[in-house]
Amino acid sequence: MAAERTPDVQQKESQIRASVLHGAGDLRIENRSIFPPGPTDVQVAVRATGLCGSDLHYYRHYRNGDIIVREPMSLGHESAGVVVAVGSEVEKSQKFKVGDKVALEVGQPCEQCDRCKEGRYNICKEMKFRSSAKAFPHAQGTLQDRINHPAAWCHKLPEDVSLDLGALLEPLGVAIQATKRAQLPVGSTVLVFGAGAVGLLVAAMAKISGASTVVIADIDSGRVNFAVENSFAHRSFTVPLKRGQTIEENLEIAKETAAEIAKVTRVSGGAVGEVDAVFECTGVPSCVQASIYATRPGGKVLLIGMGTPIQTLPISAAALREVDIMGVFRYANTYPTGVEVVSKKGPDYPDFSKLVTHRYKGLESAEEAFNMAGKTKDDKGNLVIKVVIETGDGDKANL
Amino acid sequence: MAAERTPDVQQKESQIRASVLHGAGDLRIENRSIFPPGPTDVQVAVRATGLCGSDLHYYRHYRNGDIIVREPMSLGHESAGVVVAVGSEVEKSQKFKVGDKVALEVGQPCEQCDRCKEGRYNICKEMKFRSSAKAFPHAQGTLQDRINHPAAWCHKLPEDVSLDLGALLEPLGVAIQATKRAQLPVGSTVLVFGAGAVGLLVAAMAKISGASTVVIADIDSGRVNFAVENSFAHRSFTVPLKRGQTIEENLEIAKETAAEIAKVTRVSGGAVGEVDAVFECTGVPSCVQASIYATRPGGKVLLIGMGTPIQTLPISAAALREVDIMGVFRYANTYPTGVEVVSKKGPDYPDFSKLVTHRYKGLESAEEAFNMAGKTKDDKGNLVIKVVIETGDGDKANL
Amino acid sequence: MAAERTPDVQQKESQIRASVLHGAGDLRIENRSIFPPGPTDVQVAVRATGLCGSDLHYYRHYRNGDIIVREPMSLGHESAGVVVAVGSEVEKSQKFKVGDKVALEVGQPCEQCDRCKEGRYNICKEMKFRSSAKAFPHAQGTLQDRINHPAAWCHKLPEDVSLDLGALLEPLGVAIQATKRAQLPVGSTVLVFGAGAVGLLVAAMAKISGASTVVIADIDSGRVNFAVENSFAHRSFTVPLKRGQTIEENLEIAKETAAEIAKVTRVSGGAVGEVDAVFECTGVPSCVQASIYATRPGGKVLLIGMGTPIQTLPISAAALREVDIMGVFRYANTYPTGVEVVSKKGPDYPDFSKLVTHRYKGLESAEEAFNMAGKTKDDKGNLVIKVVIETGDGDKANL
Amino acid sequence: MAAERTPDVQQKESQIRASVLHGAGDLRIENRSIFPPGPTDVQVAVRATGLCGSDLHYYRHYRNGDIIVREPMSLGHESAGVVVAVGSEVEKSQKFKVGDKVALEVGQPCEQCDRCKEGRYNICKEMKFRSSAKAFPHAQGTLQDRINHPAAWCHKLPEDVSLDLGALLEPLGVAIQATKRAQLPVGSTVLVFGAGAVGLLVAAMAKISGASTVVIADIDSGRVNFAVENSFAHRSFTVPLKRGQTIEENLEIAKETAAEIAKVTRVSGGAVGEVDAVFECTGVPSCVQASIYATRPGGKVLLIGMGTPIQTLPISAAALREVDIMGVFRYANTYPTGVEVVSKKGPDYPDFSKLVTHRYKGLESAEEAFNMAGKTKDDKGNLVIKVVIETGDGDKANL
Repeated sequence: MAAERTPDVQQKESQIRASVLHGAGDLRIENRSIFPPGPTDVQVAVRATGLCGSDLHYYRHYRNGDIIVREPMSLGHESAGVVVAVGSEVEKSQKFKVGDKVALEVGQPCEQCDRCKEGRYNICKEMKFRSSAKAFPHAQGTLQDRINHPAAWCHKLPEDVSLDLGALLEPLGVAIQATKRAQLPVGSTVLVFGAGAVGLLVAAMAKISGASTVVIADIDSGRVNFAVENSFAHRSFTVPLKRGQTIEENLEIAKETAAEIAKVTRVSGGAVGEVDAVFECTGVPSCVQASIYATRPGGKVLLIGMGTPIQTLPISAAALREVDIMGVFRYANTYPTGVEVVSKKGPDYPDFSKLVTHRYKGLESAEEAFNMAGKTKDDKGNLVIKVVIETGDGDKANL
Repeated sequence: MAAERTPDVQQKESQIRASVLHGAGDLRIENRSIFPPGPTDVQVAVRATGLCGSDLHYYRHYRNGDIIVREPMSLGHESAGVVVAVGSEVEKSQKFKVGDKVALEVGQPCEQCDRCKEGRYNICKEMKFRSSAKAFPHAQGTLQDRINHPAAWCHKLPEDVSLDLGALLEPLGVAIQATKRAQLPVGSTVLVFGAGAVGLLVAAMAKISGASTVVIADIDSGRVNFAVENSFAHRSFTVPLKRGQTIEENLEIAKETAAEIAKVTRVSGGAVGEVDAVFECTGVPSCVQASIYATRPGGKVLLIGMGTPIQTLPISAAALREVDIMGVFRYANTYPTGVEVVSKKGPDYPDFSKLVTHRYKGLESAEEAFNMAGKTKDDKGNLVIKVVIETGDGDKANL
Repeated sequence: MAAERTPDVQQKESQIRASVLHGAGDLRIENRSIFPPGPTDVQVAVRATGLCGSDLHYYRHYRNGDIIVREPMSLGHESAGVVVAVGSEVEKSQKFKVGDKVALEVGQPCEQCDRCKEGRYNICKEMKFRSSAKAFPHAQGTLQDRINHPAAWCHKLPEDVSLDLGALLEPLGVAIQATKRAQLPVGSTVLVFGAGAVGLLVAAMAKISGASTVVIADIDSGRVNFAVENSFAHRSFTVPLKRGQTIEENLEIAKETAAEIAKVTRVSGGAVGEVDAVFECTGVPSCVQASIYATRPGGKVLLIGMGTPIQTLPISAAALREVDIMGVFRYANTYPTGVEVVSKKGPDYPDFSKLVTHRYKGLESAEEAFNMAGKTKDDKGNLVIKVVIETGDGDKANL
Repeated sequence: MAAERTPDVQQKESQIRASVLHGAGDLRIENRSIFPPGPTDVQVAVRATGLCGSDLHYYRHYRNGDIIVREPMSLGHESAGVVVAVGSEVEKSQKFKVGDKVALEVGQPCEQCDRCKEGRYNICKEMKFRSSAKAFPHAQGTLQDRINHPAAWCHKLPEDVSLDLGALLEPLGVAIQATKRAQLPVGSTVLVFGAGAVGLLVAAMAKISGASTVVIADIDSGRVNFAVENSFAHRSFTVPLKRGQTIEENLEIAKETAAEIAKVTRVSGGAVGEVDAVFECTGVPSCVQASIYATRPGGKVLLIGMGTPIQTLPISAAALREVDIMGVFRYANTYPTGVEVVSKKGPDYPDFSKLVTHRYKGLESAEEAFNMAGKTKDDKGNLVIKVVIETGDGDKANL
């Protein structure tokens, strides 16, 4: 990141405020210095940052799974803002100018390894990703007044796209990555497990990509109804809460769930209604199991939800039917598509703005925001889908 | 086809009427015998047959390019109808029953060659395709009262899909084949050359498949306006009529056309607006040339329009930028998708029913219908897009 | 199969002998009637049948996993023979003539479903596969004197390819299917788990397909040595026999195995030596686990071995690195390639003839042959890889 | 390139000699200054530079097609050498150390555009490619004593790979790119038009990638014999020199050529012997025409040879059979594979070292070398395939 670049001696640093995590639940507002942007960087006043599940894990536990925070770290990586300064080469190239609205692609790959060179930079081993503690020193998150960021990883937003939607481009990137990996031909029948922010975005992308039947499934009927009402999916399925004592019983339940879903796809789909692909966005073993059973021979299960790392699965039911199990990790080359996607509107088109259900103002609100992000419904019974922290003032007309 | 199967001795033939081409412009109504369907066949009362450019060539010239008609042949291959009898095995399998509405996939591949076995049966060398004189004896077209057809190549239509739309599944198959071959990721920018029936269907399929910008180009502004007004494309471009004296001048004009189109895609597309794929539906050299110039490095030109067989092309402009030139010939495995596609409706959704601009009743109207199919506008100045001959009576409520 | 076709009334049946399984371990020689071949069939005198693991399961348990035998069934599906009669249409087409050596592709798909039409007939739900008890009535296996088989599913063998090698085309088909599914670019580094017949064939196909480093791993050092000595793989790895008490311990062991293998690939591979794909041919959970750990980000694990149907796997280690887990079930469109593959010979080329380690003469030897097929080494300490039952006499010069 | 990076003030420049082109046929030896390598660069003493057709065009005409040289430029881009200094970050990463043998990947893409990010950096519009005059200022070629080059675009060579072979990795990259684009399944039948350096390398890569029949065709029987004798191809075809008066006559001749070649593939290939892909390495219209005719339905024509930019082609013969015409421009991500490929040896393996038929010592020999590179045979009648200029002394044991 920019911090690694040696500034010119004549450059002057300025002061910003940052929300910094010092331990489980220990968020502090601190002053930091920031240099002017390096030659190929821009300086961005962060305006909107969506909170993600991984942020929440860091906030609560000062770790995320196996990854332990080793130094104070700002959270936030679903972000958009406004350019306030540009580096010398950026100025020359005119790629960005002060005042541009930009979405931030916050992961910076090494750009040298085989994966980077072949365009799969999302799985670069040397990736430095803001608000992830995997690399050390940690790449600081976006819950700061301003950050320097490589121009190459900023994406200009059209004037009429809000910065909240700009922040959404990050989780939308995961959804685009999933549909790209799935390579579904037009007219496909798709099942999405999980109607959280990512599940909804995945359903929307499958629909936009030409799937003729998108069924979204969740244990919460309110969420799946929301999905259909706001054009994220064609049909819904509420997953019954059942649990067996043994793995065999659980697999039997998963099989039944798959059979129930098949009835829904058959009604709404074409003559056959078999499920061509399942996008699994929960990470819950029972859902992964049902995903395998629900998929037609030759279909695909896309693993998107980060969940139980070790799972007991009916692997022969996949292998013997050539059902491929494919992972989806973050995204590569999705932002330009994402900009196109959120720029559109229409009667049957997913209403992405509805996904931001809760907004908080200022870095000081971060704790409150994280607490809300940890809930599925707020006190009034409204769904909590995406919580955004909005920061800065002045130039934020379109926020 | 069914004719090759030996009927059981006890089977009885019945009489039908057929429209049969005996020479250029020489269409006659004749009586033919038809046996009951073979074990794996169904007998279909043809209800709607769209007229295609190849039919028109046969009608006018008793040949189609190099292919010369060698025996009297019924025309028509864009067809749908109603099942009136089923073979013994079909009855057992319950795949079809009398009264079912079906679209006919009229090409019958050998099912034995490498192409067939790998799923690309559209390029099977032994293909027998109704109303094509390539194979001999010719596979008779659908402008007949009833035909026997393999159940495997019939596709059930939902009750609420009209038989006219069923007939449209044939040219729609070409459009689906084209989008399948293009494998465009969601958010692509697409250019379609030619706003005839196939061009419109291709534009619609690109749009439905998730292209964020579909520009349709034609020399006739009425056609491209029709495309945008009826949600077949996002934007339109009227191709100026210019022609140079030399190939160099013509290539220069093609380059200019491509540059003009780039302005349209840039306005409506994302930050860049480069054309990811061109679907060429005219077959006219100047359009193929402009297609190559209009495509971004790494993009694709899909050749769909059947036109000038030998063309002078700026082949280095393609090769040096890895612009792939891919043919599209008929279709394979597109009907199930097509059924899904025409079953949908919506405010921003292409209105496929608008494509059938002219309908004629009865086999006797064939000549009149062919004459209309040869025009671009009718006497009232209305566009001629797809002419359909509707036949039969009685069970045709949803026609 | 042929049995379903109604024979002409004038056709006469003749008598053959068949080896028929009536219960666990209960193989009997019986007389059967056979009609002349139907119009599109040929009659083949079976000459060589390799014994497969599934045959062995049926022989021992009268079932194969969940699939229970419901009527007496001949075993055998890895087969080649000599054409002794051809149907009327086959005669007309001259595709086969009496005396031709053919390999039999013994699975007959429905040829009507979406999978069949798209060329993935191996996962057709209506597949009738000889010596499999899944469909009912069971499709009888090839341990018979003669069988009628559709000409479309026979593959002519060159004169200089032995019928034993012809029989090998069936398991080789699985290996070809695996390399096709893997779509490995030239220069890949490949790991194969399991050095049985299928593992050896898979290693060979990966090598022939241009993998620059093929490492074969097995618990039996004799087998992996055999693989390298006979040019089936570049390098070998003997998997240490370790087993933990808990799943965590076992996963740790799997990780260590993967790390040990990485040392081997790094030595022999290029600068990096990461494993691009693992072909898992054992079905054993510890190997599947190690396969996931051993694969580089963005690589593939191909599940080929049929083993434990329910497995506990480090699924996040796959998903978070976009390691795809792909099943391989039988094969589609592999025989023509297989014929090319076994027709070649060369100093560095896999010596396929070495795979047939044990030969038995006549249907009467079936029991003895199955007993040998159940062993990993014979009494003399020689490896048992592929056991073939050779039948018939007379026209078998090249057997 | 390195020149654009501001050196540290304390860095000292040193003097080198360079061969610099000042006009058509006007090569001069000049002194140049070189700074120590930038932080992410290495300094390489160039040891071997192969001469390419584009270099020859610049040498003869001071232009290459439409591209005109605008300032004195060193030629050479097929190069390998020895690291003599490393930048500060390279030192830290230990990726390279002084004394390492490296092949140079001489094109430097922008790393920011969509093409770069998706891994197709070869078609980056901002590419700066050494010894190409397309970008300005021109990126200087490798016919210099030493150059600074980004470590990210250097590829370490194993000790036992000669620097001549290292230089060959550049044209080999084109061949690898071609086989990657073709995505041929194992067992394919391949035709290569043109037996110059690139054609031979392409044939070799097709063979190594698992094509079972590689036929190489050229008008020079000596070249195709060379190909077969040195294991670059399986079979050869000498193209007869015929030329018609009209395009129709020429197309007829092309068709005949294709038919003649089909006889060769049928003999050596499998049952069918159809050509799955043609790699066209001449750029000559008659060969491109024959390529289209020679390819089976659904096959591919890869355009590799840079030839006549505007060509008259039987485009319907391609489109109506879904024969795809795909360009190949330079390469992306091919060097690691290339290192693996040239590291191998074997009795049936292509002998890459044989391709360097003529070697010249020292920059002073450049003119003589270019003159030889312009011939097809030398004075003794030996084939001229690849001419290499070897420079430097001292550390060149393995040259």
